[in-house]
Amino acid sequence: MLSQLRNLTVKHNFINSKNMSQSSDFLFRQFFDPASSTYTYLLADVKAKEAILIDPVIEWAERDSKIINELGLTLKYAMNTHLHADHITGTRKLKELLPSCKSIISRDSSAQADILLESGDQVQFGRHCLKANLTPGHTIGCMTYICEEQGIAFTGDTLLIRGCGRTDFQGGSAETLYKSVHSVIFKLPDYFKLYPAHDYQGQTVTTVAEERQFNPRLTKSLEEFVEIMNNLNLSYPKMIDKAVPANKVCGLYQVK
Amino acid sequence: MLSQLRNLTVKHNFINSKNMSQSSDFLFRQFFDPASSTYTYLLADVKAKEAILIDPVIEWAERDSKIINELGLTLKYAMNTHLHADHITGTRKLKELLPSCKSIISRDSSAQADILLESGDQVQFGRHCLKANLTPGHTIGCMTYICEEQGIAFTGDTLLIRGCGRTDFQGGSAETLYKSVHSVIFKLPDYFKLYPAHDYQGQTVTTVAEERQFNPRLTKSLEEFVEIMNNLNLSYPKMIDKAVPANKVCGLYQVK
Repeated sequence: MLSQLRNLTVKHNFINSKNMSQSSDFLFRQFFDPASSTYTYLLADVKAKEAILIDPVIEWAERDSKIINELGLTLKYAMNTHLHADHITGTRKLKELLPSCKSIISRDSSAQADILLESGDQVQFGRHCLKANLTPGHTIGCMTYICEEQGIAFTGDTLLIRGCGRTDFQGGSAETLYKSVHSVIFKLPDYFKLYPAHDYQGQTVTTVAEERQFNPRLTKSLEEFVEIMNNLNLSYPKMIDKAVPANKVCGLYQVK
Repeated sequence: MLSQLRNLTVKHNFINSKNMSQSSDFLFRQFFDPASSTYTYLLADVKAKEAILIDPVIEWAERDSKIINELGLTLKYAMNTHLHADHITGTRKLKELLPSCKSIISRDSSAQADILLESGDQVQFGRHCLKANLTPGHTIGCMTYICEEQGIAFTGDTLLIRGCGRTDFQGGSAETLYKSVHSVIFKLPDYFKLYPAHDYQGQTVTTVAEERQFNPRLTKSLEEFVEIMNNLNLSYPKMIDKAVPANKVCGLYQVK
């Protein structure tokens, strides 16, 4: 009987275990770019009024800066999960619009930015912080940003909702991505909410428990996963030749 | 000094007053239809495992039913905020896919459904409930669904983020919409989160305080608002002749 109960508990972990509520001084807002299906995230310490943006898109920099101003926040950092190949980052434009802002990306991305993160570094805004975890595989310098207190993580293209990023360019490797997901993201508690850089099915969020159970690729063995990823036969990304050179200098274009 | 402090408090109400956290037994998930920019909302009582969907879209019924099944939930109701003119509701399809589900719309919408709501009615799922409030103006039968305990409201097309629905068809009236917003939605506490049926700028949520302060139309006087709405010169909605007849029988098509 006890083991049956245990099984039930495990089975439904993904919705009824510690369904974490956010702190009252933590602001979270998700934005979307329909053209590239990119999600941008605004996080803030409501008392200190310090904000950060994750994965802003250049076409929406005015929208982002307007809402930051309306909410009475100061943008401290505009940070990218990785060197994107499908859209141009809004970092440079945001530095023009909100001069307090500094750009952030991982050192391993080989991109330029005001601050280059290494795995384990923390990004502080007010009393809140994100911990940077290198999760390569989609690109060589992909980071997953984890906010432990709020039970949320920003997985970039490393883990998508019921999917994952492609691994066939920018130093990508199916084996590396699989290990990143299993050694970092799937090691987080079941109830952690995961926010990806993209979704193409109108989904906005998932959880660690759901992806551990339902991700059609990452629940496979490493060998099966590598086989799947090496046979996707995806077309050449239409924005890559424009986006990658621009994003390599994210935040360090000439600004006013 | 005290009055200065009071002013500061009022000024920043929209982010640092009671920034409501959701109950641990309450599941909330937002979905998006890029074709019509429609938001669909899944709400559930995690313990009772009863769920409801607000404004589902026919093209995404399989996505919605899949996630409901994966989460181990039973769909009790598929409900619409109003008789939509820009997409076909997913209600009928969801009744086929998840036969436990009943359809809901307001009586004033003149649409058919299993349950026709009047203002003040409550929709129960597990221990949670939504209160239906008639907020006409975009259409004659528009409802705003309010979940008081969680501090959230679903405003349909009555109030959009920094905007509102058009008022030039389906019994719409600018004056009526203005009164609906000011007498129902703007009467909610500042910290209430508002989730609209659509957004065309990649925004996902707003608050009562933000809209009271920043909505470019609804912060105007009634006379100015009516003038704005009567001079929008919008084109004829491209889906209206297909969507309205289909949505009039939402949930009552022949089902298996």
